[in-house]
Amino acid sequence: MRAQLHRVADWIADYRATIESRAIAPAVAPGEVTAALPARAPKHGEPIERVLADLDSIIMPGIVHWGHPAFLGYFSSTSNGPALLGEMIAAALNVSAMTWRTSPAATELEGVVLAWIREMIGLPHELTGIVYDTASVALMHALAAAREAAGDVRRRGLAGRRDVGALRIYASDQAHSSVEKSAIVLGVGEENVVRVPSDARFRMDVAAFARAIERDVASGARPMAVVATVGTTSTASIDPVREIAAVCRAHGAWLHVDAAYGGALAMLPERREVMDGTELADSVVVNGHKWLFVPLDFSALYVRRPELLRAVFALVPEYLRGDASGAVDYMDYGIQLGRRFRALKAWMAFRAFGREGMEARIREHCRLAELFAGWVEREPYYSIAAPVTMAVVCFRFAPPGASAEENDALNERIVEAVNAAGDAYLTHTVLRGRTVMRIGVGNVLTQERHLAHAWARIREEGAR
Amino acid sequence: MRAQLHRVADWIADYRATIESRAIAPAVAPGEVTAALPARAPKHGEPIERVLADLDSIIMPGIVHWGHPAFLGYFSSTSNGPALLGEMIAAALNVSAMTWRTSPAATELEGVVLAWIREMIGLPHELTGIVYDTASVALMHALAAAREAAGDVRRRGLAGRRDVGALRIYASDQAHSSVEKSAIVLGVGEENVVRVPSDARFRMDVAAFARAIERDVASGARPMAVVATVGTTSTASIDPVREIAAVCRAHGAWLHVDAAYGGALAMLPERREVMDGTELADSVVVNGHKWLFVPLDFSALYVRRPELLRAVFALVPEYLRGDASGAVDYMDYGIQLGRRFRALKAWMAFRAFGREGMEARIREHCRLAELFAGWVEREPYYSIAAPVTMAVVCFRFAPPGASAEENDALNERIVEAVNAAGDAYLTHTVLRGRTVMRIGVGNVLTQERHLAHAWARIREEGAR
Repeated sequence: MRAQLHRVADWIADYRATIESRAIAPAVAPGEVTAALPARAPKHGEPIERVLADLDSIIMPGIVHWGHPAFLGYFSSTSNGPALLGEMIAAALNVSAMTWRTSPAATELEGVVLAWIREMIGLPHELTGIVYDTASVALMHALAAAREAAGDVRRRGLAGRRDVGALRIYASDQAHSSVEKSAIVLGVGEENVVRVPSDARFRMDVAAFARAIERDVASGARPMAVVATVGTTSTASIDPVREIAAVCRAHGAWLHVDAAYGGALAMLPERREVMDGTELADSVVVNGHKWLFVPLDFSALYVRRPELLRAVFALVPEYLRGDASGAVDYMDYGIQLGRRFRALKAWMAFRAFGREGMEARIREHCRLAELFAGWVEREPYYSIAAPVTMAVVCFRFAPPGASAEENDALNERIVEAVNAAGDAYLTHTVLRGRTVMRIGVGNVLTQERHLAHAWARIREEGAR
Repeated sequence: MRAQLHRVADWIADYRATIESRAIAPAVAPGEVTAALPARAPKHGEPIERVLADLDSIIMPGIVHWGHPAFLGYFSSTSNGPALLGEMIAAALNVSAMTWRTSPAATELEGVVLAWIREMIGLPHELTGIVYDTASVALMHALAAAREAAGDVRRRGLAGRRDVGALRIYASDQAHSSVEKSAIVLGVGEENVVRVPSDARFRMDVAAFARAIERDVASGARPMAVVATVGTTSTASIDPVREIAAVCRAHGAWLHVDAAYGGALAMLPERREVMDGTELADSVVVNGHKWLFVPLDFSALYVRRPELLRAVFALVPEYLRGDASGAVDYMDYGIQLGRRFRALKAWMAFRAFGREGMEARIREHCRLAELFAGWVEREPYYSIAAPVTMAVVCFRFAPPGASAEENDALNERIVEAVNAAGDAYLTHTVLRGRTVMRIGVGNVLTQERHLAHAWARIREEGAR
């Protein structure tokens, strides 16, 4: 086993050393990887060498290299060395942090890392954290707590009740689709998600939000929660959280702040204002795996009233009953029982980088995005499609003489052509009905030259 | 980085080589690990060597060694070498399998591994799989699909509707607590979970189930779903799935089979009957991380009508719209968007062990449990507390002259004393109100001598 561990350590080192020379996105057709693999598990065990050979010849050609420094899709990638080492060790330990007792250090390190993040991004000390896998699951838990205000929903549910009317959840038209997913799961219903228009800078229009909530209250619906976003998925726009909080308070609605991406920016003293008003929230989510140097998966939820989350979720069957007084059993705060030791990779990354190291990298990501935006602005027929607030740039190529629809198709084709060549990767999104190109900078390996090359490739394809 | 990878490879190899000499459960008090760590992240980055030193001196003394061969708690541990290597590689790749396009091989290998498991445990080909993190989350998704039969719940929700009455979910008094957690999340309500009594062998009493469902239907409630269990958490009892299915069909209720633990046993040709009737289910869950040699987390849900799951969960925002015809985008089948490359560790374990290797290990685990049960049966004042159906043994020490309550406390104290010594680890559970001891055998490293030692320690503490 020691030899195999070193064999795989070399495989990983080789992968990281050669990642830049790989085509970022594979040219495989659906079904190609499947067809290369047998339909049944092998009868007899096989040597690891043979499995690794198939990994190289069958699996790797179908992998998108999220860790490539020119991968600029989504919110980029949080791959990094120290966190990878932490994930390796966590896999070797394979403990479950369901209760304190099932691995005290896993539970306590989770608490420590959550306190570190809270302090780094300036969240108030009164907020208590818990780590889930994804921001979607974190939001679902926050909204389950919010739903409880409708009256004993945990025990009685929502079905067949005459004493509970429609529940409404508000979010801007730029908020993440996980709002609808949570509404579906929780029995609130997709049609009870009210999408509030955003302003010219893609921030929730608070006046429109106030009107929507008043209209609903007048018609007998209950404003259950609002999801404000700090760093929306398409443009990284920042909702006016403080003003939204005032409307929430007036109507007793739960305020959830989705800072999954943008929360990290508050680490920079000069950008702390992005979280302005968040101290008034009932819950806040910040993803380690978006911009805090923690690989998939790690999503931190902070709640003002953890006892409410516990009141909704704690069951504690006999075979899991702990007796460690004062210890937190995280399984009591959510649906998931099996809980990986996610805190370790975060702890190793935070220590290896230090606060200064993380701040420097985040600052550099923002600088690179601004730089890229400057190039776009100076280029004829290219324009910035949304204010650049963090390390995301949305832009559009609109040569004269073409219709808006033709330019939509053109922007989409440029993205496809750049991605097909394999040495840069970006995505597209739709803003106000128009297709635009989008880059996100977040990889510790990404340098100015990678952006310059991506930009050259985009113009090249645009010219063609 | 290469040097650090080898450094950690050695750390892991050393850990695995020395695990048997470690005290399984730590003697730390709540707060001890936290107190040894700074309240803030360090300002400056630190060398990995210093982080690893703190790992050894602060974190490791607070770890429960789930992978220790004498760790017999819960369902044991699925730690193993090949899967660990797979998890290391998946962490290095750090891709998200949300859509096919975001990493084709991750999505396709998930499909391949799901087909392998389905075939190995004899599930019908019509069932389609998807991997979630845990069985609790898998159950929640299955029940969300079941809930849809109440009428357009995705869109309209459950709150404030006059056309939907109470929804009921049935499970035996031995079923997992995740049934209540799902009922809470989905807005069905904890009080709408009907716990059906189990028989003398801890199997759901089907006549009682039929009566409960008829009573509910007569009173206007809707039987939404039943959760039958193949391998319950306390005793590994097996519900009569075929008879339960007949009652479900008569009332149009969704049948979910929780084979999270027991499904693996169907790999053995001589034990395939444990899954009898499961071919009639609407959904079945089998955990890789219980008895299929896949470390945390990996839970496979199989559904008869994947299009229904998709109808409940697919949203597909523009920035994630795929265009790969024929490819599955797993994010459309659940709440989670970020999805780790979980298939890789399963694939590596299945290939390294082969079907024969996995069968041999599962057979050996059952043999060891039977052996242990035999020792218990022959020992005065010790008795088996539930039939041994898989690799779980529940037993009780009841010396004469003590009350049942005194013996409850005694059994609990024996567990605590054995665990405190650190060279064996078991748990307790409660059956029919009485505390019993419980072991689960599932680690590839566990040998007869580990059980013999645990048994000696138990008798020693009992005698004391």
